[in-house]
Amino acid sequence: MAYYALNTEQAKEYARQHAGIFHANANLECNEIGDGNLNLVFIVRDTATNASVILKQALPYAKVVGESWPLTLDRARIESDALAYQATRCPQLVPQLIAFDRELSLIVMEDLSDHTIMRKGLITGERYPLFAEHISTFLAETLFFSSDLGMDQQQKKWKVQQFINVELCKITEDLIFDHPFRDAETNNISESLQPTVQTLWQDEQLLAEVAGLRELFLTKAEALLHGDLHTGSIFIRQDSTKVIDPEFAFYGPIAFDIAKVYGNLLLNYAGQLGWQPSAEALTDYRAYLLQTIREISEQFEAKFVALWLAHGVDPIAKSTIYQERYMTRLLQQAFGFAGCVLIRRVVGLAKVADIEQISDASKRLEAQKLALTIGSALIKQHRQFDNIEEALAAVVAVTR
Amino acid sequence: MAYYALNTEQAKEYARQHAGIFHANANLECNEIGDGNLNLVFIVRDTATNASVILKQALPYAKVVGESWPLTLDRARIESDALAYQATRCPQLVPQLIAFDRELSLIVMEDLSDHTIMRKGLITGERYPLFAEHISTFLAETLFFSSDLGMDQQQKKWKVQQFINVELCKITEDLIFDHPFRDAETNNISESLQPTVQTLWQDEQLLAEVAGLRELFLTKAEALLHGDLHTGSIFIRQDSTKVIDPEFAFYGPIAFDIAKVYGNLLLNYAGQLGWQPSAEALTDYRAYLLQTIREISEQFEAKFVALWLAHGVDPIAKSTIYQERYMTRLLQQAFGFAGCVLIRRVVGLAKVADIEQISDASKRLEAQKLALTIGSALIKQHRQFDNIEEALAAVVAVTR
Repeated sequence: MAYYALNTEQAKEYARQHAGIFHANANLECNEIGDGNLNLVFIVRDTATNASVILKQALPYAKVVGESWPLTLDRARIESDALAYQATRCPQLVPQLIAFDRELSLIVMEDLSDHTIMRKGLITGERYPLFAEHISTFLAETLFFSSDLGMDQQQKKWKVQQFINVELCKITEDLIFDHPFRDAETNNISESLQPTVQTLWQDEQLLAEVAGLRELFLTKAEALLHGDLHTGSIFIRQDSTKVIDPEFAFYGPIAFDIAKVYGNLLLNYAGQLGWQPSAEALTDYRAYLLQTIREISEQFEAKFVALWLAHGVDPIAKSTIYQERYMTRLLQQAFGFAGCVLIRRVVGLAKVADIEQISDASKRLEAQKLALTIGSALIKQHRQFDNIEEALAAVVAVTR
Repeated sequence: MAYYALNTEQAKEYARQHAGIFHANANLECNEIGDGNLNLVFIVRDTATNASVILKQALPYAKVVGESWPLTLDRARIESDALAYQATRCPQLVPQLIAFDRELSLIVMEDLSDHTIMRKGLITGERYPLFAEHISTFLAETLFFSSDLGMDQQQKKWKVQQFINVELCKITEDLIFDHPFRDAETNNISESLQPTVQTLWQDEQLLAEVAGLRELFLTKAEALLHGDLHTGSIFIRQDSTKVIDPEFAFYGPIAFDIAKVYGNLLLNYAGQLGWQPSAEALTDYRAYLLQTIREISEQFEAKFVALWLAHGVDPIAKSTIYQERYMTRLLQQAFGFAGCVLIRRVVGLAKVADIEQISDASKRLEAQKLALTIGSALIKQHRQFDNIEEALAAVVAVTR
């Protein structure tokens, strides 16, 4: 059967046959809830039992700011393969994969409508006391066991081949590691922010560090990344965290996944001056965000090292000196990459609601400038950080 | 047609039909000249015209020290693809690829019998005044244009996929970056060398650096390497250099190819105390070898940077600060990897004639110890080298 894009009626019937939870005569309803840029997302629900599933279908093009360009359907295969891998390590932290249809580039998976998109929750000032625990487990488990430290090093090479993800990597390479750092067409910079951005573009030390981080992204096939682990790819409740949408998965530098989490928490940190009701509340919430980063860092390191000691496959890599250097390097690179994430979300094509939806223009500008300042500081200083406290101190030092 | 291993008669007839240089009635002679460990190598010659070609056929197993293990025939496809790529950059420095037969895993190529294997030439004290010029061109051209600096970064990812070389990479990973640094079965250590080797195995700083270099080899998909660029893979004359046998080709760290050249020149440097007729001659020849390394380093850097400036595809990578850091990093890593090459050839499974064929046992032991001492010094100091003179000084400092 050749590919065709489903309509809601077809999605309903597909789910009836393949989801494995609906009766043949069940009364189903179906809504398309995707943003329509890259994928169709259908929720199909049994009106009697309320049981539901998600159907996610890749579209053969991407729509961004009115334009449309072709985009491989193979990304659905990659997303399905990545979800399947993640489920082998931490099934409680990802949506259950029910079926994958290669011809239709269609994934059938668990419905998580009882969760909230984390970005929205953070904007409204929610706190998630289990998030650091959950996400550090997700990172340590998925990254360690797909790396040369935790799996057969020959099998890993076949996995690198399986997850070559040319087109989606290019999006990241352009929008995070290139366009924001020069006067590129895709950038979207408000008039009032121009002088600040011009300063960044002339900062030779900054650009040299970005070039090094871009090189890492292009060349370091270290572990199977989620590849797009921002707070919009996380469904959350007080008691549950689910990481979704791994269509950017590829073999890349471990620190990049960590960095997307840190970077998006720090974008919210910058944006909170537009959301919190008072200076005290702002200080308090920002402290919560930094504490969350601290806990993620500490717990990730503890869990990753514990896995290494218990399951490390490489005799030479058991060197304690090497392990310490390795973990410090991951911390440094994570904050370097996070700095790029902060800058791209202010200068580049795709913005984040944490800052862009601040209605007060002067506060929005202030938040944008703070995000750029933190981003720049992290990029320029990251190779000097010896521990998490030095990295967090660098954030605090530039927060006005 | 299914795979079968050719005999000399079949090789002759194959060449008659496919080499494109023999008459249908030509009187051909054929000899198998391979060492028989991994491949059959036939030379087929027209007894009237003296025209000749080489047929190289991969065997489906490897024979090492009497044992035999299965080895993928796909390496012939990789060698053929790598030869074809190298010929696009520097046809004058590789044998001409005449034909490739996928079913037979058979490469037909230019005969280079008028050249000498460089390792043999060096052992007899030959000097090759054009070698640095030639090999630095080979390295700069093939590495730059297959890297993210010099080619389309999306096409490069398909090329990474094309050159996944699981089994041959494992040979390098085991025999260079693992076994020599612990008490592994494959090692081959003479009684008198045991105490020196034991000291290496207990040197925590050394092992931490080796772990870092191994990580680079496992994860850094930087450029299409030759993968096995020792002086036995180089055919040479006074006026010509030909790099052969790229069956280990894969996307790896640029510095590794450079390192195999340096490492093998330094193995010869250590071994010369068993070959040179006098102390003066020894000093003189060693100076020649170090000067060759210096010239390769300087010329490689100049050529690579010139290509970067003229053909660099990446706007962010044009940062001068980044370029300088990049070239220094390559230099450092090249000497780190070279150190591993020195140690593996003394401790590990496969030895080199430069040292092993020294007939005087005490001189051989002295050469082995010197190779280990230089190797260890380079591994431990490589990240401190700021330029080629510091690296060469480190070699001289430990030469007794």
